Amino acid sequence: MQGHRTLVVGASGYSGAIVSRLVAAHPAFSLAAVTSDKLAGKPATQRLGAGVSTNLVFSKNGEATELSRNCDLVFLATPAEASAELVPHILEYTSAKVVDLSGAFRLENEADYPTHYNFTHPSAALLNTAHYGLPELFGPPPAGTRLISNPGCYPTATLLALAPLVKSGLVETTGLIVDAKSGVSGAGVQAKEEYSFVEIAEDLRAYKVLSHQHTPEIKRHLSRAANTAIGDLTFTPHLIPIKRGLLSTCYARPKPGVTPKQIEECFANAYSTSAFVDVVAPAAVTLKSVAGTNRARVGFAVNSDVVIAIGAIDNLVKGAAGQAVQNANLLFGLPETMGLSHLEPLHP
Amino acid sequence: MQGHRTLVVGASGYSGAIVSRLVAAHPAFSLAAVTSDKLAGKPATQRLGAGVSTNLVFSKNGEATELSRNCDLVFLATPAEASAELVPHILEYTSAKVVDLSGAFRLENEADYPTHYNFTHPSAALLNTAHYGLPELFGPPPAGTRLISNPGCYPTATLLALAPLVKSGLVETTGLIVDAKSGVSGAGVQAKEEYSFVEIAEDLRAYKVLSHQHTPEIKRHLSRAANTAIGDLTFTPHLIPIKRGLLSTCYARPKPGVTPKQIEECFANAYSTSAFVDVVAPAAVTLKSVAGTNRARVGFAVNSDVVIAIGAIDNLVKGAAGQAVQNANLLFGLPETMGLSHLEPLHP
Amino acid sequence: MQGHRTLVVGASGYSGAIVSRLVAAHPAFSLAAVTSDKLAGKPATQRLGAGVSTNLVFSKNGEATELSRNCDLVFLATPAEASAELVPHILEYTSAKVVDLSGAFRLENEADYPTHYNFTHPSAALLNTAHYGLPELFGPPPAGTRLISNPGCYPTATLLALAPLVKSGLVETTGLIVDAKSGVSGAGVQAKEEYSFVEIAEDLRAYKVLSHQHTPEIKRHLSRAANTAIGDLTFTPHLIPIKRGLLSTCYARPKPGVTPKQIEECFANAYSTSAFVDVVAPAAVTLKSVAGTNRARVGFAVNSDVVIAIGAIDNLVKGAAGQAVQNANLLFGLPETMGLSHLEPLHP
Amino acid sequence: MQGHRTLVVGASGYSGAIVSRLVAAHPAFSLAAVTSDKLAGKPATQRLGAGVSTNLVFSKNGEATELSRNCDLVFLATPAEASAELVPHILEYTSAKVVDLSGAFRLENEADYPTHYNFTHPSAALLNTAHYGLPELFGPPPAGTRLISNPGCYPTATLLALAPLVKSGLVETTGLIVDAKSGVSGAGVQAKEEYSFVEIAEDLRAYKVLSHQHTPEIKRHLSRAANTAIGDLTFTPHLIPIKRGLLSTCYARPKPGVTPKQIEECFANAYSTSAFVDVVAPAAVTLKSVAGTNRARVGFAVNSDVVIAIGAIDNLVKGAAGQAVQNANLLFGLPETMGLSHLEPLHP
Repeated sequence: MQGHRTLVVGASGYSGAIVSRLVAAHPAFSLAAVTSDKLAGKPATQRLGAGVSTNLVFSKNGEATELSRNCDLVFLATPAEASAELVPHILEYTSAKVVDLSGAFRLENEADYPTHYNFTHPSAALLNTAHYGLPELFGPPPAGTRLISNPGCYPTATLLALAPLVKSGLVETTGLIVDAKSGVSGAGVQAKEEYSFVEIAEDLRAYKVLSHQHTPEIKRHLSRAANTAIGDLTFTPHLIPIKRGLLSTCYARPKPGVTPKQIEECFANAYSTSAFVDVVAPAAVTLKSVAGTNRARVGFAVNSDVVIAIGAIDNLVKGAAGQAVQNANLLFGLPETMGLSHLEPLHP
Repeated sequence: MQGHRTLVVGASGYSGAIVSRLVAAHPAFSLAAVTSDKLAGKPATQRLGAGVSTNLVFSKNGEATELSRNCDLVFLATPAEASAELVPHILEYTSAKVVDLSGAFRLENEADYPTHYNFTHPSAALLNTAHYGLPELFGPPPAGTRLISNPGCYPTATLLALAPLVKSGLVETTGLIVDAKSGVSGAGVQAKEEYSFVEIAEDLRAYKVLSHQHTPEIKRHLSRAANTAIGDLTFTPHLIPIKRGLLSTCYARPKPGVTPKQIEECFANAYSTSAFVDVVAPAAVTLKSVAGTNRARVGFAVNSDVVIAIGAIDNLVKGAAGQAVQNANLLFGLPETMGLSHLEPLHP
Repeated sequence: MQGHRTLVVGASGYSGAIVSRLVAAHPAFSLAAVTSDKLAGKPATQRLGAGVSTNLVFSKNGEATELSRNCDLVFLATPAEASAELVPHILEYTSAKVVDLSGAFRLENEADYPTHYNFTHPSAALLNTAHYGLPELFGPPPAGTRLISNPGCYPTATLLALAPLVKSGLVETTGLIVDAKSGVSGAGVQAKEEYSFVEIAEDLRAYKVLSHQHTPEIKRHLSRAANTAIGDLTFTPHLIPIKRGLLSTCYARPKPGVTPKQIEECFANAYSTSAFVDVVAPAAVTLKSVAGTNRARVGFAVNSDVVIAIGAIDNLVKGAAGQAVQNANLLFGLPETMGLSHLEPLHP
Repeated sequence: MQGHRTLVVGASGYSGAIVSRLVAAHPAFSLAAVTSDKLAGKPATQRLGAGVSTNLVFSKNGEATELSRNCDLVFLATPAEASAELVPHILEYTSAKVVDLSGAFRLENEADYPTHYNFTHPSAALLNTAHYGLPELFGPPPAGTRLISNPGCYPTATLLALAPLVKSGLVETTGLIVDAKSGVSGAGVQAKEEYSFVEIAEDLRAYKVLSHQHTPEIKRHLSRAANTAIGDLTFTPHLIPIKRGLLSTCYARPKPGVTPKQIEECFANAYSTSAFVDVVAPAAVTLKSVAGTNRARVGFAVNSDVVIAIGAIDNLVKGAAGQAVQNANLLFGLPETMGLSHLEPLHP
């Protein structure tokens, strides 16, 4: 075991398990500890597979701060409320750096937490110190960063698709429409009738219409990317009967006089140096080309009335665990692709 | 509202809901009452759709006996233990006829209930009076029958495939192998992680290997059909990521000297007058040809070592609700296809 | 055999087969003939199931006009180019009424056919005489109508969701966005790698972005419904790994001063007398509630910036074969629900 | 580029593409050339993803021998007939070692090829020189081996499950039943209606009943593993609506006097030193635990009448491309897990 000692809190959920496996296989990190209340006391291999040490045993989530003392890096794959409680303790009592996969530090306004996450934020002062880890748009964290807020799955796909347009000033920043479709793993491990196979298969529906918690996250960070306040933006998530993958279809109005060629150039330049984002034809923005990988695909189409920008990711990898590792790489000054480039699409 | 007044107990589950809809659309039955503890007090249309009366409201399961007094026919789509409690009351205190969709009256031996159904049978005396309602093999119920035990889904597909062979005496009655595959609705409405979409989709596994409760049911009624005690029979159910449908692949050894032609004739005659069972080539024994209908398909292949007989049904229709209505038709002296022949395959 | 003698041309495709089955079970129509080049000479029961006459045999498509002479009603489940050729012959040489399921008579401008359907229209004069059969919006056909143009699947769901809003004058008629998701059967019977199970399952993508042939159909008939020319409207179809069902999520901007209450009332009134359309909460606009039926569900949500209207149908029933029968009912002065009300959801 | 120069013939199919990616990421092999008639002239990255060299371009299959001269290792992901033609040329005119993924060299008897593969074998002399590459049962290839016949997907799962039993002498070697279930990718890239999404989803059926070409392959190599001629063995494959994965449920009769404990010990010892095979409880023999990996799971259950042995693999990895790389590792004296141990399950 070598490399930066790493703790994963909440390692039995879908994202937490993937982070744990990525860390275990990572050249510069070592998986030192994992927690899960559900599996506490059980060998980690049982949930995480043959890639983790046979000596590793799940601890309880309550031991997270204690375990962090002995670690350089902590991933929190916990509900937002748990992360909001835990982060200040880890920052104060340990020297570990933290990548939080929850929504606990993604929003700007404390007041949005009761509304969108159903809790009063216990550490709201950190809302403005966390670095929002979407490296393709916001670069590596500033020196000294100890807390990275890992973006949500919908915001990742949506911001990658829309940000080049709004940054370039080529489209109106009001009336933005985001129609997004997600695989079911985005809801995490579920033991509810409504998420049972028989209820989900062959079905399709919108949910949390006009009320999803990723709406303020998208608006906040799209405004930052654009360096201008975004006006109204409508976000509608849909639940699709697939296991993994997320596609976000975004609609903007071109400003008067903007030509298709300008839009084309905008996207051609946007990700030309990016390791993980490919700009392709809209019909090539498929889930099967990105599922299982930390890659994103972005495509666009334009006429005089509308620009359509489509983004696709694996909601659990680029939309969660993979991006978390990408952020951790940057936190430690490592190449951002380290431990991620072996991920190939799940499609044959 | 006209026709025999009918009560469905447990009408919010998958089978119960289908029975209710079939009754509501039936020319000779009328849906007089439905019960469901989960939906008690709610309008029936909410769960059962536009085909039921807008005046109908779910009652509690506890009112079943009381409601039965006012009915001619009761369907029990309840767990086996509940049916075992309820049936003697309905038979004693009302004059209604009962079709029980559970396993409560399918086995011969009282002792099998603690083993296979986890309860001590409270009305074991009825085990030998209930008529096992697989009409293609056992004909209409004898005059005066008040209790029909509706077959399980696995036994229905398996018995339809195997019974002609064992009845004919062409195969050995030991060493029978039944390898069955069922859609997930066979498990009923589920709110468990293991039945969630993400855990089921793209997966496949055997379950309850050598211990499934349908094994003694198959053996008992196959022995009756064959008029000889079946020796060992191995039944292995598998869970398949589809919503509806069940396929049972059965293996028997031909007796010495038996020719393929004899096997062929056996199947050609078996269902020649049956309204619901078609004998087809084995590759045509598909779920899509039967799902949504009360039909079964049976196919076979034979060489000198083995006879393979394959049966396919919709587990919720011919394997549950549809067969229950077929049995009710026979109980009331109606044509067995009444209220069932409009059911078309779900496949386009 | 009784009722209006009916011919189905192209009866082996998904929509054609469903029309045929619905006709065979219809109280006022009788299935007199079916054609299919692929199955010519084969018994109809082989493809259409046990509900059709065992005497019926598939004829060749080329015999359609000849067969029509002997019929009162013809359904064309043929490609648009074939319908465009066939319809003038049937109208001229026979007295049959025609319901055409293709796009051959849905568009206003002859010039759109080479662009969107890849053929020069041979009977463009009929474009303005065909009645567009979306009865919930345009009522029954005028007396003397002999040709009904049956709406496309995407237009049906989209128009049912959007038309009440634009008719009411409550929303702007520019900048309309329609983001639609369809099951794979919408593409018809397919023998291409890209429609193979392995390529479609667990995937998702937009297609024909900014170029789908249903865009001018939606614009034309939405303008008629609104009695005002619709400005720009963007339509993006997506391919979803389900067999049947279509959901259309539509975005419009409320006019200044419009209140949510006004939008609510608009939808409350829109379908209050409709047999087939239910207005429900947006999360209840699911495919499983309508798949297998001729019903549609419409839901909406509104804030100061946007009105979201969502429509769901079975693309093969209300989006094709079922609506065709509904239209035929109206052509013959029958109740519009005749032969359709027994259709129950495919969901358990 | 370093390592043994490697050619993949037929690199655009499902197995060929996976072999190519595994070779490109392999520490000791380098992907020197790929062929595909369909993609000839196209950049390899287009089909094979970002892991292969951007300079690599697909050659035509006809150039395979010529390209082999310059290579140390050749994988043939070609139809059996093509492999049977190609292998003698490569062996004669080049010094490359060959791993053939087809069935061309798996059977013992020349006469089985016309029957099962529809061609007369052009190089039947090689049938007895090829090494059948199932390392867990037959060990590494003998020194000097130049041709490895990579096992079929069904035989791999079946032999891993059954071989320990027959080798141990604990079960009868007649009357063996193999009931197998495969995902659709096992049929390769398909452009046929019967493999379209709409025809496969929600369906299930047996195929090639009593006639599948893997039957003689299983019998031949099970006999070798058991060191005794296997009597009758019945193999029934089923097509399941999943993309990847294969489960084989096998039934054998224990010999008189054999105890469950003996069976248990047999399996406990069978794979104790194997890197890729885990023996687990039968309900844990799932596709999701092995899909995407080169691992197999084997489980068993036993009573006095039957032993059930269940094997699960990813049909494209342990059942094809992964096992091919495992075999190539052994051909070159490398650790058998090299380039394979990073493969994690596709399941979240």
